[in-house]
Amino acid sequence: MGNSAVLELAKDLISRPSVTPEDAGCQDLMIARLEAIGFRVTRLPAGGVENFWAERGNAGPCLCFAGHTDVVPSGPLAEWQSDPFQPTIRDGLLYGRGAADMKGSLAAMVVAAERFVALHPGHSGRLAFLITSDEEGIATHGTRHVVDWLREHGETIDWCVVGEPSSENMLGDVIKNGRRGSLNGRLTVQGIQGHVAYPDKADNPIHRAFRPLADLVDQAWDAGNDFFPPTRLQFSNIHAGTGANNVIPGQLQADFNFRFSTESTPESLQAGVHKILDASAMRYTIDWQLSGPPFFTAPGTLVAATQKALQAVEEHEARLSTDGGTSDGRFIAQLGGQVVELGPVNATIHKINECVAVADLEHLSQIYTEIMAHLLEAADDH
Amino acid sequence: MGNSAVLELAKDLISRPSVTPEDAGCQDLMIARLEAIGFRVTRLPAGGVENFWAERGNAGPCLCFAGHTDVVPSGPLAEWQSDPFQPTIRDGLLYGRGAADMKGSLAAMVVAAERFVALHPGHSGRLAFLITSDEEGIATHGTRHVVDWLREHGETIDWCVVGEPSSENMLGDVIKNGRRGSLNGRLTVQGIQGHVAYPDKADNPIHRAFRPLADLVDQAWDAGNDFFPPTRLQFSNIHAGTGANNVIPGQLQADFNFRFSTESTPESLQAGVHKILDASAMRYTIDWQLSGPPFFTAPGTLVAATQKALQAVEEHEARLSTDGGTSDGRFIAQLGGQVVELGPVNATIHKINECVAVADLEHLSQIYTEIMAHLLEAADDH
Repeated sequence: MGNSAVLELAKDLISRPSVTPEDAGCQDLMIARLEAIGFRVTRLPAGGVENFWAERGNAGPCLCFAGHTDVVPSGPLAEWQSDPFQPTIRDGLLYGRGAADMKGSLAAMVVAAERFVALHPGHSGRLAFLITSDEEGIATHGTRHVVDWLREHGETIDWCVVGEPSSENMLGDVIKNGRRGSLNGRLTVQGIQGHVAYPDKADNPIHRAFRPLADLVDQAWDAGNDFFPPTRLQFSNIHAGTGANNVIPGQLQADFNFRFSTESTPESLQAGVHKILDASAMRYTIDWQLSGPPFFTAPGTLVAATQKALQAVEEHEARLSTDGGTSDGRFIAQLGGQVVELGPVNATIHKINECVAVADLEHLSQIYTEIMAHLLEAADDH
Repeated sequence: MGNSAVLELAKDLISRPSVTPEDAGCQDLMIARLEAIGFRVTRLPAGGVENFWAERGNAGPCLCFAGHTDVVPSGPLAEWQSDPFQPTIRDGLLYGRGAADMKGSLAAMVVAAERFVALHPGHSGRLAFLITSDEEGIATHGTRHVVDWLREHGETIDWCVVGEPSSENMLGDVIKNGRRGSLNGRLTVQGIQGHVAYPDKADNPIHRAFRPLADLVDQAWDAGNDFFPPTRLQFSNIHAGTGANNVIPGQLQADFNFRFSTESTPESLQAGVHKILDASAMRYTIDWQLSGPPFFTAPGTLVAATQKALQAVEEHEARLSTDGGTSDGRFIAQLGGQVVELGPVNATIHKINECVAVADLEHLSQIYTEIMAHLLEAADDH
């Protein structure tokens, strides 16, 4: 199994237009390959989403590779240099939607398992795959569903490598060993509708909102810590008004999101927001929605194995990071195991002309094999 | 001509469903009555809007009665106690859309002219009517159009009584002798779109806007004067956001409106807004639209005649006021004459179950006749 095995599987996956939450046959392809090397596969479809759990080995610690077959929409086809669902190589780069996020990683994982099992058919512990087609969408029927099933069935995951494209400038320069939490708030400010010519008979919620919301923006929520940047609040939407320019609206609605470190909790942030807003003369309500708690894997067995694998294949170690958006790691971490994310360079993900270096695909597969070798000591070899 | 003449004409007008900018035959009815007593009528239709100018007398100062035949939409029919376009009397009140704004006034004006002309067929000066069906809408093809035509034809208006419902608690308690100006601004704040997880790569226009816009809200623009309340700014609409709660939007748009006294000018207000916003770090543009300059009629011949008429019919005088929304008076005032607004109680205008007291209609007609008598000294009587 050389370059061509990873590249060919990546191309096969890209050519299946699995726009979220579609799987478009990607998982069939992976399952056939995994079953061929002795994995026991459980399909776990839910709500129109394809998921599966695959496991090899009967006892001992579980090393799981996790990922998603769904991709974000291509965007305007005319802007792509080649069809996003026809994998195309130009100048050593493989182009196509999902090349970097994360069909390249899926191909690298499968081929890594094939290589590892060929060398160590009687490996210790358990090697597993957790694959979904609902990561890029609302993600309610994807990894969350599989994790619920694992919990119900008493399955554990000791170490999990998520194939998210963690690298920034070159393959393996960054490992994510956690992610900030995400907390959404939908704020409704109550006013009294009226005519702009008679403001004393109305109560303008836009006017009421400006200073308290500015105070939220300027608030320092925490200072972060060694592993997390400070918690940040961002407003994403604000709407008020009837459309007419002579009417004071009766209500204002604004959406905001916290990306929060392990120094804050959903409860502490909610209390902080209410303290600021309650100090104003504003009548308001907030609907809170916890999108994901933060997760964090302290440097330990999994991080060490990953760094050793990087050292072996790439001759460098990675910087640990917890920034960026949420990932399915947040669901898997709830099972109590260690979780890292390691995948290709993320410069083109979710963009027109998404691509991945062909050479990086093979290197990534070798890194994954090294991680397997470090953690699932091959009983048959010793 | 007693009660029944004004009431019957008001009912005839209300039964014509002239939702803005429709006239639905109202002006035909008025024109027939005015031509019958010697008015020369010029129809001035424009852009689907019906307008007319009617004049009686050949020389001397011109007293004009102005008004509109169009009405605002009825709103939900089910909430009306009787059909809004079937005039209905209950407990001494005439119900129907336009009863108070301003078909009652139109009926009172026409009958007032009939009464006045019958008594003073050789009156001095000129008696005129300026009627449109585009006052409640965007008002570009209505009074503004007629005023342009009058200017082109060298016509003057020395005194104008607009039949807008100026009264607050009882007929004639308030005369409007001016209106504040109205200046609209549409503000666009430029940011840079991005992901809420990476705020440093974006520039959130919502965050940029809060404090500068709060400063606009808190600014004292002027202190008003004896005749005008202080200038006020109100935001009517604010919109930013893609709908997604993980995206920092690239732009924010907000509409605001000034109702301004004669102590400010459009230029002074624009300069004040730019001074505040330029002091912030916000990149922005504003599209300005002057909806109407303020107008003001100092107490003089017209106000005195109106007060005398009120004293004669109602045995009280009115309070002078310049507050409330804009009216077509702003266009007529540009011809340089004196303008007042005097009409029924405005408690139900633009509302469900709009109504006017039947007794007020006749009183209003008598007041209008008194104004005619005071200003157009009847040459044949002297």
